[in-house]
Amino acid sequence: MSEIKKIAFIGSGNVASHLAKALVNKGLSITGIYGRNPESTKDLASLFNAKHGTADHIDVSENDLIIISVPDNAIEEVIKQLPIGNAFFTHTSGSLDINILNKLGKRTGVFYPLQTFSKEKEVNFEKIPMMVEAQTKEDLNSLEKLAQVLSPKVFRISSAQRKKIHIAAVFSSNFTNYLYHIAEDLLAKDNIPFEVIQPLIAETTDKIQHLKPFHAQTGPAVRNDLETISSHLEDLEAIPEYHEIYKLLSHHIIKSRKQ
Amino acid sequence: MSEIKKIAFIGSGNVASHLAKALVNKGLSITGIYGRNPESTKDLASLFNAKHGTADHIDVSENDLIIISVPDNAIEEVIKQLPIGNAFFTHTSGSLDINILNKLGKRTGVFYPLQTFSKEKEVNFEKIPMMVEAQTKEDLNSLEKLAQVLSPKVFRISSAQRKKIHIAAVFSSNFTNYLYHIAEDLLAKDNIPFEVIQPLIAETTDKIQHLKPFHAQTGPAVRNDLETISSHLEDLEAIPEYHEIYKLLSHHIIKSRKQ
Repeated sequence: MSEIKKIAFIGSGNVASHLAKALVNKGLSITGIYGRNPESTKDLASLFNAKHGTADHIDVSENDLIIISVPDNAIEEVIKQLPIGNAFFTHTSGSLDINILNKLGKRTGVFYPLQTFSKEKEVNFEKIPMMVEAQTKEDLNSLEKLAQVLSPKVFRISSAQRKKIHIAAVFSSNFTNYLYHIAEDLLAKDNIPFEVIQPLIAETTDKIQHLKPFHAQTGPAVRNDLETISSHLEDLEAIPEYHEIYKLLSHHIIKSRKQ
Repeated sequence: MSEIKKIAFIGSGNVASHLAKALVNKGLSITGIYGRNPESTKDLASLFNAKHGTADHIDVSENDLIIISVPDNAIEEVIKQLPIGNAFFTHTSGSLDINILNKLGKRTGVFYPLQTFSKEKEVNFEKIPMMVEAQTKEDLNSLEKLAQVLSPKVFRISSAQRKKIHIAAVFSSNFTNYLYHIAEDLLAKDNIPFEVIQPLIAETTDKIQHLKPFHAQTGPAVRNDLETISSHLEDLEAIPEYHEIYKLLSHHIIKSRKQ
């Protein structure tokens, strides 16, 4: 098993930034940051005294691993610019099959940190489950070893499983965050600070560490309290999108209890 | 201002149980637990050596406060059984107007802990925002003082504001919990433990303590990544309710960015 020491990134967004910083903190070497955005690749590269440029400038021979961390819908365009050879390429996507990298040869894999990354917020990689996959056994072993440098929670996950996990992540992170946005927006319209519901949000997520969400469910819908639901819907009539979401989710909570 | 020392509860559900225990822990006296359910009223009353029985058995004169903590749709039926006099009655509902207690006289109010309560899970009242309201100034003062015994976060909130807060709570707690249930259910179908997405859930809620949810939004919808969304929807076709929810929330996240 060859140890991964030198890594280049294609992409300079949230995932690439957090991952590159975490790898450097653990003693790995970032040789370059490549991508479409000249400013953000330069800014990120400058943190590591690394090279930067567009993806076609990458020297694959000097890297043990090239991590492609770009939006899912940009990855095919990036692959076209890369040389086919013996270099080891991984993507970091929750959704994309490992096969999307097939044009790059036999040494491909996936290095997926199951977390939500925002520019302005540091994350602790030791708490992030790392999901790894690779075409060859040797690459899988070295990728797993690299992941273990970052986190004690490393899982060998197939593309099919990873897609399921990603869909679950969309429900439990992206969609819940949007519901927080709705809550904040509704409170703001009445000049009530978002802080008043922060303890409720914290308790809701704390509860499901011990209880199954099905058993932790509270609120008007699970009580089949149609009067409260109607009264809330009446208040929401002025905001059709919130009205529609409230109605649909209440309907499904009620239905889930009758099965 | 008369100090509240002796309290009776009507209702023996989650809110009544947690609230009564918290009040006793702070040195208040629970004189009785009254309600429709003979077993749960008896069980809860036995914890405090308190009386128990149906609501019509309550001796209002021996209490400084009677807290009505029953489901919203049961409160009108309870009120019919209660004597009108000089006793101080409050409900604990997020949704109901203070006026629903008008038949009980001039000494009515609201004592609303903004939290989600489940039987199996202890909560720390010191982190719970307490929302108080009362018809008379004197009752408002004594109710506020009682709330301050439980929590440093006490707010004087009107019925109209409280309803808005309750709607925001439904979005940010009840609906998010249902999305956790969907995530857990999707993972379970593939034998993947719910634990793998717990760090993601924790980070999602941690992020919004510092960032506005609008700025913390991640995922395929906010990137307008229609290919990933289509691919997820295809996978969800076998479960129409999850498909419908995924589609609607993605649609609204995309739309919220175009405004």
